[in-house]
Amino acid sequence: MSAVQQNLEAASARYSASFTQGSLALPPAKKYLVLTCMNARIDPAPAFGIELGDAHVIRNAGASAEDALRSIVISQQLLGTTEIVLVKHTGCGMLTFRNEGAYKIVEDKLGPPVVEELRQRKLDFLPFPDLEKAVEADVAFLRASKLVPDSVVISGWVYEVETGKTRRVV
Amino acid sequence: MSAVQQNLEAASARYSASFTQGSLALPPAKKYLVLTCMNARIDPAPAFGIELGDAHVIRNAGASAEDALRSIVISQQLLGTTEIVLVKHTGCGMLTFRNEGAYKIVEDKLGPPVVEELRQRKLDFLPFPDLEKAVEADVAFLRASKLVPDSVVISGWVYEVETGKTRRVV
Repeated sequence: MSAVQQNLEAASARYSASFTQGSLALPPAKKYLVLTCMNARIDPAPAFGIELGDAHVIRNAGASAEDALRSIVISQQLLGTTEIVLVKHTGCGMLTFRNEGAYKIVEDKLGPPVVEELRQRKLDFLPFPDLEKAVEADVAFLRASKLVPDSVVISGWVYEVETGKTRRVV
Repeated sequence: MSAVQQNLEAASARYSASFTQGSLALPPAKKYLVLTCMNARIDPAPAFGIELGDAHVIRNAGASAEDALRSIVISQQLLGTTEIVLVKHTGCGMLTFRNEGAYKIVEDKLGPPVVEELRQRKLDFLPFPDLEKAVEADVAFLRASKLVPDSVVISGWVYEVETGKTRRVV
């Protein structure tokens, strides 16, 4: 068993020993979803004030709205959420590369056949050069999408990994 | 400002007031990624023992490996993670519907043109009928993918929303 797996088992024993919230409902109690980045420096629950059972939390590289569309539609149409809080963050890895550079790194590490699979899957890494503009663009994308009803409340934010603060952009 | 947005601002003021971890590095310190569901009843940090800065956390509807592939490749190839911990959970919404049923719900709520957009985007909701088998299938998918190097350590788990316990499947 790896150190990571041992750590998970130990954490699970501790967490479940004092766990008292086993009867929460399936749909989020506060009917909203948070979309943020997978970045290791973000802990959404305390940073954004999410109590257990309150909100869906979707996370991917860069907090991409396009990449999250499947989960967003399921959250809204099948599980009744009506508000989206989108949070990107300072120091995001997605600010540091472009698709072609990333393809080159993958090709060097894993070989040309793998990049061929990337291209077949039309895998866009969805990097962005400007943080605030990316927040605005993703919120605009959601507002324009037919898959997101006009009644859904959408806001866009930036989390500062340096200060722990979250500030509103749009 | 919505109640959700007010709550976020208040949480951010509290969290940042005592925040002391503003100098963490961009890549995850423990070089692993956790892939789990967006479900509101999961708080990965305490449940799985993830300290701030240690691991990427990817979350989508159902903890789908296929849906997470872009983020997984970025995590491994550009940010150096070498281990995947995949955690699905009991009581998952993805166990409760099939694609055609979900399309019907979306069509009833948002109208036929929206379902047309779903079909154009080839949006598979990726539901699954059996929890343990879905964990095994997603781990097998990752092991078989050329995009995930053979050296990557992969384990599959189930989090029990009733007990707060996480148990290994594969």
